[in-house]
Formats: sequence, structure tokens, C-alpha cells
Amino acid sequence: MTKLEFLLEEVVTANRILAREGVVDSFGHVSARHPDNPQRFLLSRARAPDCIEVGDIMEFTLEGEAVNAQGRAPYLERFIHGGIYEARPDVHSVVHNHSPSVIPFGVTGGKLKPLLHMCANIGHEVPIWDSYDKFGDTVRQAVFISIYLEVNAKLQMQAMAMGDIKFLTPGEVDKIMARTGPYSINRAWENWCRRAGRLVTEVG
Amino acid sequence: MTKLEFLLEEVVTANRILAREGVVDSFGHVSARHPDNPQRFLLSRARAPDCIEVGDIMEFTLEGEAVNAQGRAPYLERFIHGGIYEARPDVHSVVHNHSPSVIPFGVTGGKLKPLLHMCANIGHEVPIWDSYDKFGDTVRQAVFISIYLEVNAKLQMQAMAMGDIKFLTPGEVDKIMARTGPYSINRAWENWCRRAGRLVTEVG
Amino acid sequence: MTKLEFLLEEVVTANRILAREGVVDSFGHVSARHPDNPQRFLLSRARAPDCIEVGDIMEFTLEGEAVNAQGRAPYLERFIHGGIYEARPDVHSVVHNHSPSVIPFGVTGGKLKPLLHMCANIGHEVPIWDSYDKFGDTVRQAVFISIYLEVNAKLQMQAMAMGDIKFLTPGEVDKIMARTGPYSINRAWENWCRRAGRLVTEVG
Amino acid sequence: MTKLEFLLEEVVTANRILAREGVVDSFGHVSARHPDNPQRFLLSRARAPDCIEVGDIMEFTLEGEAVNAQGRAPYLERFIHGGIYEARPDVHSVVHNHSPSVIPFGVTGGKLKPLLHMCANIGHEVPIWDSYDKFGDTVRQAVFISIYLEVNAKLQMQAMAMGDIKFLTPGEVDKIMARTGPYSINRAWENWCRRAGRLVTEVG
Repeated sequence: MTKLEFLLEEVVTANRILAREGVVDSFGHVSARHPDNPQRFLLSRARAPDCIEVGDIMEFTLEGEAVNAQGRAPYLERFIHGGIYEARPDVHSVVHNHSPSVIPFGVTGGKLKPLLHMCANIGHEVPIWDSYDKFGDTVRQAVFISIYLEVNAKLQMQAMAMGDIKFLTPGEVDKIMARTGPYSINRAWENWCRRAGRLVTEVG
Repeated sequence: MTKLEFLLEEVVTANRILAREGVVDSFGHVSARHPDNPQRFLLSRARAPDCIEVGDIMEFTLEGEAVNAQGRAPYLERFIHGGIYEARPDVHSVVHNHSPSVIPFGVTGGKLKPLLHMCANIGHEVPIWDSYDKFGDTVRQAVFISIYLEVNAKLQMQAMAMGDIKFLTPGEVDKIMARTGPYSINRAWENWCRRAGRLVTEVG
Repeated sequence: MTKLEFLLEEVVTANRILAREGVVDSFGHVSARHPDNPQRFLLSRARAPDCIEVGDIMEFTLEGEAVNAQGRAPYLERFIHGGIYEARPDVHSVVHNHSPSVIPFGVTGGKLKPLLHMCANIGHEVPIWDSYDKFGDTVRQAVFISIYLEVNAKLQMQAMAMGDIKFLTPGEVDKIMARTGPYSINRAWENWCRRAGRLVTEVG
Repeated sequence: MTKLEFLLEEVVTANRILAREGVVDSFGHVSARHPDNPQRFLLSRARAPDCIEVGDIMEFTLEGEAVNAQGRAPYLERFIHGGIYEARPDVHSVVHNHSPSVIPFGVTGGKLKPLLHMCANIGHEVPIWDSYDKFGDTVRQAVFISIYLEVNAKLQMQAMAMGDIKFLTPGEVDKIMARTGPYSINRAWENWCRRAGRLVTEVG
């Protein structure tokens, strides 16, 4: 299995997992930078995440032009994905979603901050959580953060109704982010694959 | 497949989807204006939405009289459906439900307004969301709005507990409503069909 | 199928439905007065509702003595069931549960009152909702009320957080209770049987 | 089936049940003291609870050293399990989790106390709920308490939003704890096994 074939499977699995875990509904999408050409990225044709198959994944230039559309209609939001990959060479995967428990924070301006170990990877405050730099776990890390962002938002909403919250300290967040690696991410990935009815793919 | 056969399948699928997505429980119903005769509409016999099959769909006059009952017991609420089709020639589909997150707004008099892009199609405020004018997507549009009305209500309830809400502006609502078409609706429809175990039907 | 055989199936189905709909978990139970002998009632051996089969249903005297135990261990709470059948000849079925949304009302003393048409059958206020008098639908009616009591409690909790609630008026409650019959109850029963993987049983 | 074989199956089933009931997600773990050697305990290799099989269960010394690792990577948290077994000879099973409804209490310092009969076994207040002393039901009791701790936390959160809560009295808690035995625990265990797709195992 080539790096590209592996990544195509990962993008499909990421879409299915985010649907199964309630982070995306009929809308939302996951892209990944092309493993062989950093000027290209991979993104599904316009389709609900839980319906996506490998044949739906298209290749785009950073300007959002399809390299070989074969009649497949793209998402309008491909320009946002392309723009991020252009501005941030360190970014290898982007998740665009409307995660249900996060929205109440967005529309009220409430600060969303990590309160649980597993959620520390959303970063110190949510606006800074969009950068990853390790190839291989790239898509898995983006999924991991997206799911625990939803978890954190839901828990924080409940806790806010009860009293003052003791969030993780900046030092705790830094330490956890520095330490989170395949050990944690792959454990969750295996579990989410099982729930989404997908096999875990290995780079061959 | 004739327009009528297509619409019968659509009405069944709409009932199943609304049950699967939690908008209706054992009660609630979806009707559609007859595609060949605007003085008639199609509605199931009195049965829970998730149990309905094509053979359950009956034809009614706008006065609520069954054209060919064949012993099937109709919903009492058929008169509401007929009344709407009579008063509003621009309406092609009606969803009657008791959507769970909407009820707390109803019983407290709280204003329900769109706060998320996908939910803009409920209209500027809920009382005006009952009119559609494009045939073909008619039933799908009614289902789309019903589901995102429930989504919006649930999110708004959570956000209300957190602080002042920044709703979509009237201009944003107008723009989104003008632009929402098959591109978005069919993407959701395919996803909901899959979840409800129904095939997507095409006009033949 | 005799009246007794029918009722045994109904009691099993009632247990399964209440488990599937989240009204009971591993605890809780449903009994029915014996159709041929009002001095006896039918109740499962001590087992989680969703595991119960026809062979688990035992016959008890109103004092809670097993008529033919065959080594099956009874619920301790059989004395509560027997006591109700003794004190109230008009009662034909009893549901004993700890319905999750009802508990917060119990432990805070909050009044639970119907706010939705389907929920009117819980009565004017909850303490009076425990009497039924029609044989045949007896078990189905008890299940119907148990499920819509949970629904009402959940909705009322959400509405209480939003403002003053406009409940159904006493007159509305009376009218709906007088009118609720097989037309509504059997529609829900068919749906719940499907969800619980049970066939609808007919008196033969 | 030896005591050890029985306990290995119990630990697997406990992991699956806690995942199915939402007490653990991809993280969290259950251990049991070795039935033949109190200086050892049993714990899975580092894997999500719902993926665990008998071959994943490893044996550890109380210092957290694997007796026969066979290349399996252990949880980092094995030292916490070992430390508890060392300090508390009366403890036979430990559940380490981040139960979702419990977290809001943890981060706000809210007191978590039993308000429902089934939940009395969490103890008078949560910090004291970590000791069990009967072999055989050891793992089942730990699972029982973990699940009803989550239940109690969720109910208490809802009730706190409604008014002052009437908790169980200290005397009620003591009586229920003294009386809770196989009669209740095995009824729930059978139900949870069915939901988790596991057979109930008997000591042979």
C-alpha cells in the first residue's frame, strides 16, 4: 500500500468516524495534504461524511481547482481548506465541522477551555487548536482533537451550570500536548474504527 | 416510475427519516399535494411514521374525504392538512409534528430563531416557516426544515442557558434561504435515507 | 390463544418496550391482574425487564404468595403490586419503575403536570395517574402512560429552565383522557413493538 | 473453568459493559486482584475497553511489573492499580474511569451524593466508594457501582437545576449497602451482558 493509498483510506475512515461520533451530521468535511506533493490536498466530492467512499476523494490544487474531477461535484468550502494549506505549511489535515456542543459557545462568545486530560489537545483556548505537524498520525490527530473538542464543550456546558470551573492549568495543557502521541491516539482510533465499522489501515 | 409513484415513495421515506431523526415518535405525519391534481393530497392511514409503507398512503380531497379508503382508517388531523393546501396553493408538502426540542419554546412562549447556517431555512422566526414552492424537492425540503428546526431548538436551548445569543441577521437568513437548493438538500437526504434504511428514489 | 396466553405475551412485551424506551433499566417491573381470577396477578420472576420471557411470568395471590414457583425467585416488590390490586379493584395493571426524568421531580418535590397532548393521560398531577379500568388494553395503557410520563418530565425540565410554562388546562386534560382509546394506544404499541423486536399479539 | 479463567472472562466482560454503558470511552480500565495470589493483579494491555479480549489481559506485580508481557504494551496507569491493591488488602477490583456526568462535579467541586436506591452503593459521599470485600462478585460489584455512580451524577445535575434535593439519609445508605448482594447485582449483570453481547460466565 502506497502512502497515497493509505491516506485515501484514512480520509474515508476519518469522515465515517466523525459522523459516527456525532461531530459532523450531513455536512462537514475532512481533508489531508497530499503525501507526495505539498501543493495538493485530498478532499471528498460534495457528499455527507458517513456516505463517503475512496472513489469520492478528489485531488485539489491549493487554489481549490480539481485535478481530475471526472464529473464529481466538489464542496464549495474547498477554498477554505486550500487557503489553510497555503498559509500554513505545517498543517497536514483540516477538519471543518459544526460540532453540536461547540456551537452554543460560538453564538454566545463563551470561552471554551480544556477541563479534562483527554481534551488538553484542543490547546489553551480554542482559536489556537488548528495546527499539527507529524505526518502519519496527521489525520488521526485531527480526528482525535475534533472528538475531544466536542466532549470538552459538552462537559463544560454542564459544569458552567453548576459553578466555577477549575480548568487545566497552562502548564498542564503544555505537558499533555507535548506527550500525546501514537500511544493514546491509536488506542482511540482502533476503538472509533470498530464503532464506525472500518478496518484499521496500516502503512504497507 | 411516474411522478405519483415517485411521490408515494418520497412520502414513505420522509416518514421513516423523521422517525429515525427523532422529529416524530409514534405520532406526527407528512403529506404531499398530488402531483397531477392540486385538489388532492397524499397522506398515510393512521399509523406510526416508522411503520408506514407505500400501501398505507391514501388520497384525500382538500375537504379531507378519502378517495378510495379500502378500509384504511385515516388520521383525524387530515383536516388540518387539507385546510392548508386549500388556503395556500403555493404549499406542496406539510409536516405535522411535536418535535421534542421545539415544545419547550411552545409552552413558554420563547422565540425560536436561526443561529446556525444549516438552520436558516426555518425562516426569520418560526411562525413563517411553512411555505415551499418548488416541486420535486418539495417533500425533501419539508423534511430538511423539520430536522434543522429540531437541531436549532436544541442548540438554542443550550445557548440560552449560557448568555446572550448572536443569531443570524435577517440579511444572512434571506441569503441562505435564497441559495439553499438540491446541492444541500440532496446531500442530507442521501445521508438520512441511509440512516433510515431507505433507498434514494429518482424520478424515472 | 386464550385470554391468559394473550396477557402473558402482553406482559413480556410491556417489559421489553419499557426497557427499549428507557423507562426501566435493569430494575422495574410490570404486572397484570389475572384475566380469569381477580384474586391473582401475573408478574415476572426477579429478572431485568429486557431479559424476560413468557416462562418467567409467575402467578401470585394478592398477598404475594407464588401459586407455583417452580424454583423461580420472585421480586421483593411483589407485595406492592398485590397491595394495589387488593385496595383497588378497578386497577388491572401496575408499572413499578424509576423513570429517569421523573426522579429529579421526586427528589426536589417539583410538580409534574402535563404540557403536551400525548401526555395528558398522566392525569392532572402525577399522584393520581395509577388507575385504569378497561380490560384488553390494560397493559398497553399502563405502558402508554409510563412512556409519556417520562416524555413529559423531560420536556418540563427543559421548559422550566426557560420560563413560565403554560400547562394543559384541567378541561383539556379531562377531554383528552376521556377520548384516548385504542386508536392512539395501538398506534404507539405497534411502533414500540417494532422497536423492541416483538410481534403485536392479538386476542385469538 | 478455574477461578483464574473465570476472572479473566469477568474482566473482559466488565470492560465491554462499561464501554457499552458509556462509563468509559476509548480510555479507562478495570483490574482485578489475582484469585490465587494476592500479590498480583490482572489488567489489560493498553487498549480501548470495548476492544479488549482475554488474550489482552496481563498479570502484574503490585509494583506494576508485567509477569509475562509477551510484547504487549501495558497501561501507564497500572501503577495506580498496583498502589491501591498494596495499600488496601480488602480491595479486589479497581475501575479507573472518567465517567462523563461525574466530571462536572470534579471540576466544580460539587458534592456527589446518592439520591436513588440503586445508587446508594456509591456510599455516603463519593470519596469513600472504593472498597469491596466479597470475592466472586468483586468485579460485578465494581461495575455495578461505576454505572450507578454515572446514573446518580446525571440525575443529580438535573435535580440541582430544579431546587433543593432530598438525598438518601445516612441510615438509608447504610441499610441499602448492607443489603445489596447477588440478588440485585446479578440481575443487572445479566442485562448488561446481553446489551454488551457477552455471555454470563459461571464459576465452573
